Amino acid sequence: MKFSKMFIPTTKETPNDATLPSHQYLVRGGFIAQTGAGIYDFMPLGKIVLEKIRAIVKEEMDEAGANEVQFGFVTPLSLWQESGRATTMGAEMLRFKDRKNGEFVLSPTNEEAVVNMVKNRITSYKDLPVHLYQINTKFRDEARPRFGLMRGREFLMKDGYSFHSSEEDLVREFNLMEATYKKIYTKLGLDFRVVAADSGAIGGSGSKEFHVIADSGEDTIVICDSCDYGANIEAANRKPRHFTAWFENTNTPASMEKVLTQDLKTIEEVSNFLSISKAQTIKAVIKRAIFEEKTQIVVFFVRGDDELEETKACNAVNALELTDATEDDIKEAGLVVGYCGPFNLPSNINFFVDLEIKDEIGLACGANEEHYHLINTDLSTLKDVKYFDLVAVQEGDICACCGGKLSYTKGIEAGHIFQLGTKYSAAMNANFLDENGKAKPFVMGCYGIGVSRLVAAVIEQNHDEKGCIWTKATTPFMVDIIVSNSKKEDEAQVGEELYAKLKHAGISTILDDRINARFGFKMSDFELLGFPYAVVIGKKLAEGFVEIVDRKTLEKIDVKVEDVLGKIVELTK
Amino acid sequence: MKFSKMFIPTTKETPNDATLPSHQYLVRGGFIAQTGAGIYDFMPLGKIVLEKIRAIVKEEMDEAGANEVQFGFVTPLSLWQESGRATTMGAEMLRFKDRKNGEFVLSPTNEEAVVNMVKNRITSYKDLPVHLYQINTKFRDEARPRFGLMRGREFLMKDGYSFHSSEEDLVREFNLMEATYKKIYTKLGLDFRVVAADSGAIGGSGSKEFHVIADSGEDTIVICDSCDYGANIEAANRKPRHFTAWFENTNTPASMEKVLTQDLKTIEEVSNFLSISKAQTIKAVIKRAIFEEKTQIVVFFVRGDDELEETKACNAVNALELTDATEDDIKEAGLVVGYCGPFNLPSNINFFVDLEIKDEIGLACGANEEHYHLINTDLSTLKDVKYFDLVAVQEGDICACCGGKLSYTKGIEAGHIFQLGTKYSAAMNANFLDENGKAKPFVMGCYGIGVSRLVAAVIEQNHDEKGCIWTKATTPFMVDIIVSNSKKEDEAQVGEELYAKLKHAGISTILDDRINARFGFKMSDFELLGFPYAVVIGKKLAEGFVEIVDRKTLEKIDVKVEDVLGKIVELTK
Repeated sequence: MKFSKMFIPTTKETPNDATLPSHQYLVRGGFIAQTGAGIYDFMPLGKIVLEKIRAIVKEEMDEAGANEVQFGFVTPLSLWQESGRATTMGAEMLRFKDRKNGEFVLSPTNEEAVVNMVKNRITSYKDLPVHLYQINTKFRDEARPRFGLMRGREFLMKDGYSFHSSEEDLVREFNLMEATYKKIYTKLGLDFRVVAADSGAIGGSGSKEFHVIADSGEDTIVICDSCDYGANIEAANRKPRHFTAWFENTNTPASMEKVLTQDLKTIEEVSNFLSISKAQTIKAVIKRAIFEEKTQIVVFFVRGDDELEETKACNAVNALELTDATEDDIKEAGLVVGYCGPFNLPSNINFFVDLEIKDEIGLACGANEEHYHLINTDLSTLKDVKYFDLVAVQEGDICACCGGKLSYTKGIEAGHIFQLGTKYSAAMNANFLDENGKAKPFVMGCYGIGVSRLVAAVIEQNHDEKGCIWTKATTPFMVDIIVSNSKKEDEAQVGEELYAKLKHAGISTILDDRINARFGFKMSDFELLGFPYAVVIGKKLAEGFVEIVDRKTLEKIDVKVEDVLGKIVELTK
Repeated sequence: MKFSKMFIPTTKETPNDATLPSHQYLVRGGFIAQTGAGIYDFMPLGKIVLEKIRAIVKEEMDEAGANEVQFGFVTPLSLWQESGRATTMGAEMLRFKDRKNGEFVLSPTNEEAVVNMVKNRITSYKDLPVHLYQINTKFRDEARPRFGLMRGREFLMKDGYSFHSSEEDLVREFNLMEATYKKIYTKLGLDFRVVAADSGAIGGSGSKEFHVIADSGEDTIVICDSCDYGANIEAANRKPRHFTAWFENTNTPASMEKVLTQDLKTIEEVSNFLSISKAQTIKAVIKRAIFEEKTQIVVFFVRGDDELEETKACNAVNALELTDATEDDIKEAGLVVGYCGPFNLPSNINFFVDLEIKDEIGLACGANEEHYHLINTDLSTLKDVKYFDLVAVQEGDICACCGGKLSYTKGIEAGHIFQLGTKYSAAMNANFLDENGKAKPFVMGCYGIGVSRLVAAVIEQNHDEKGCIWTKATTPFMVDIIVSNSKKEDEAQVGEELYAKLKHAGISTILDDRINARFGFKMSDFELLGFPYAVVIGKKLAEGFVEIVDRKTLEKIDVKVEDVLGKIVELTK
């Protein structure tokens, strides 16, 4: 391709709202253009990258035996009513009416559509397993679309769905998909991590996320320094922090006692006052839980030196969302701000206790009475306690798998695989006949890759202060031949010759033949656009030399004109 | 691919509303599945066909130097307000609001989006021409979605848009696109015709349509039997039918006269009564013209033996749509049903006269008075007459290009190219600086191909009473190896061997290895699915023979097992 024949509108202007490097450079490099909140056009270079990623995803999915299909982007709301998600999906699922008042949605995901496709078309265990996938546009009406392609409303996704006659066969496919996804991210040239994950709104049991490691990642990933354990903090585990209850230092545990703590409310204040560690206290976190049809105040009790993990808490309550409770909310519920504890709670209060303090003895907590706390409590005396894992793993915690040390890293979620089970097939009455002629709902898995998000993720992981640095698998062109001064006939001619030679050798090449662009401009475009190598044809041509520039290191080497092809082949293989 | 590993849900059931062969066979063959009115999923075989067509379109567009891009499927209504089409596009353009009450549309076409992309990014004539195209989903909320993929609401389209600094350069690109489209339809293996066309809602001057010839085509195409003239009937011309006015038989033309015609109203009745030919009369066609803000009664006058061509009439009025006027409408407008003519019309009536009777003398027409007609009229005496080409070319008319005979054929519109000019760039204030530094609006062309419609068009042109017959370029698989009885080890083994051999030779092959399907079932699937060739491994295997079946002719030949590859290579090249 020649620069003069391609629409590559680079600019020095950075969008006001662009905080991430990928957002800035993809816009400045003319890869993408915003047309609305969270809606982007792909310009020619961006489209090439998108298609390269799509092709790699398709190749590996086909290799794994999945069949490519294509669902309508517009789907009837009735399908979502069948599964029950018409009410649970919330405002992210954009609904509209057509000219005949029929209700439709812009597909945010396609579990319902695929069940509808397979239902009554596969009727016997003999025709299972089947894995159907598509690479197609999705729309999620995010409340706060941001970060360019990272969290857009319209985006390109690979979504696959598998159907099985047994859980065992699902697990086999789930593992095959984990291996397939690893191949895909490896082929793309990305540094990534597979981690245990929360299943979120998709549902089902057992899910894994694939994170591209990058400082700008929205997700906190917990990783072990000595084994390959990794988990999204929303689903991370640790070795429980055992606490030696203070009664162990005496002979008999003291009995529960109410103490005046005056205006002391925080864990810090109370533990200091009582001369105990924070770990010897119970922290109350009060939230408003939003359900489909109601809102309720709920209380979470965790050890004083732990933090509530919101996703875990939300899953425990089985709420759509948790929001902060105001002081008024708390008082209205009959609770005392700063003095809330699990004993003597008003009977209507829904509360949850972290699994790590199950049946613990000797902790201090609020007395549900202004100015008072309880000490020497015994949680085993509480009745009907709902224990759940509620807390966030912290850096320095101990790995439950190997005893290593856990730490945080930041990741961009670029893939997610789920063992769905029968959630959708049962709801939509999609059955097959098993070996005994008995009707059973399909056992399902689902598998997603954020294809357009990956365009941004590559740049989040690979950039410098000058611009993009594409990986070899994702770059629009491998080599940028920069003719220093296109008005000089000899330079222009060598440029054309090298261009023909590289193209002939199957190396994707762009020739910067722009007559009116000066060398500095061409060079800074090269740095911004991030092709792996440039061949600069300039002053040294008189001595028969050109310069090869490595975009990653910006190192330059002089190469004889006749050796360029060989050198490039060596560098790019 | 093996049949047992692919989701190909064939069925004997035909959808109730499926009248076209493509609709019936694509559903029955498990290529597509309907999920809503005019909304179809592509199942694995259908997706392969769609992608094959997409790939051919992309290859030729790239070869022609166009740059692939991708516009958001969801576009802000504000863009359509800029161009003025927010009001003219009507109910086909589906509008909706997002969670923040922003107004958006599902793109029915993308002129506005592309102008928005290029505006301010190309500022100089030096950066022109540019041609940007995409192959992406569109949505048009058709009032009557029907015929399967032929007239769906959600569909896949290739839409390209070119930008030029002059009309001459636009014409060059327009011709290049005509050549490119011809290559595409030829590669697809289709019998097609390029015809002159009406520009419709897209606007602009000069447009051509590409029609796939098929009995079921919705469009009537006028073609010449001796030159390559072809036109959609909406835009077709003919050599004017000269009529020797009857005054030529006398020495002086008679003067206009009112004659009592009693209750005779039709052209047939009146011409019989007056003993003149129908061509000596003027027919009035009364319509309601619907404009953006009003509705108006309009009258079209054409020669008595001609028919009004609605699209031509609509363009003459510049209305959004024409509908039939009721008797009440006609009376209310002050017109007399059955006796309407161009002379003495109420002054508020908007009327149009066909160009072929411009200034004609001696015709009979209604007198705008109950029971009376006029004879010996002289149209040149009428003032402020709006003459337009209003009539439909008829079979047997004479070609204006060569004097040959014109006839009708039926076509499926599968492509349309337009010389848009500055309609959108001027409206959206998208300018470039010319050689003299003067700002001018871009001169534009636009070029569309109905990619998903082509899937159906291939079958409309290529089918028989048993099912689909794919062309070599569009078939999902070139060869179907049918193992007659997959439980017989020798048959199964030869099937596998041949499958490996054909695959190795790069021939796309599907192996029908289904254990529980009988031969008859496999054979009728082959006929329904329409792969070009089957290799049947059955009884003759004992003597070392298999059968090659040609899907098109259903002819069978016996071939030695070891000669199959050679024979298939010969047949498919």
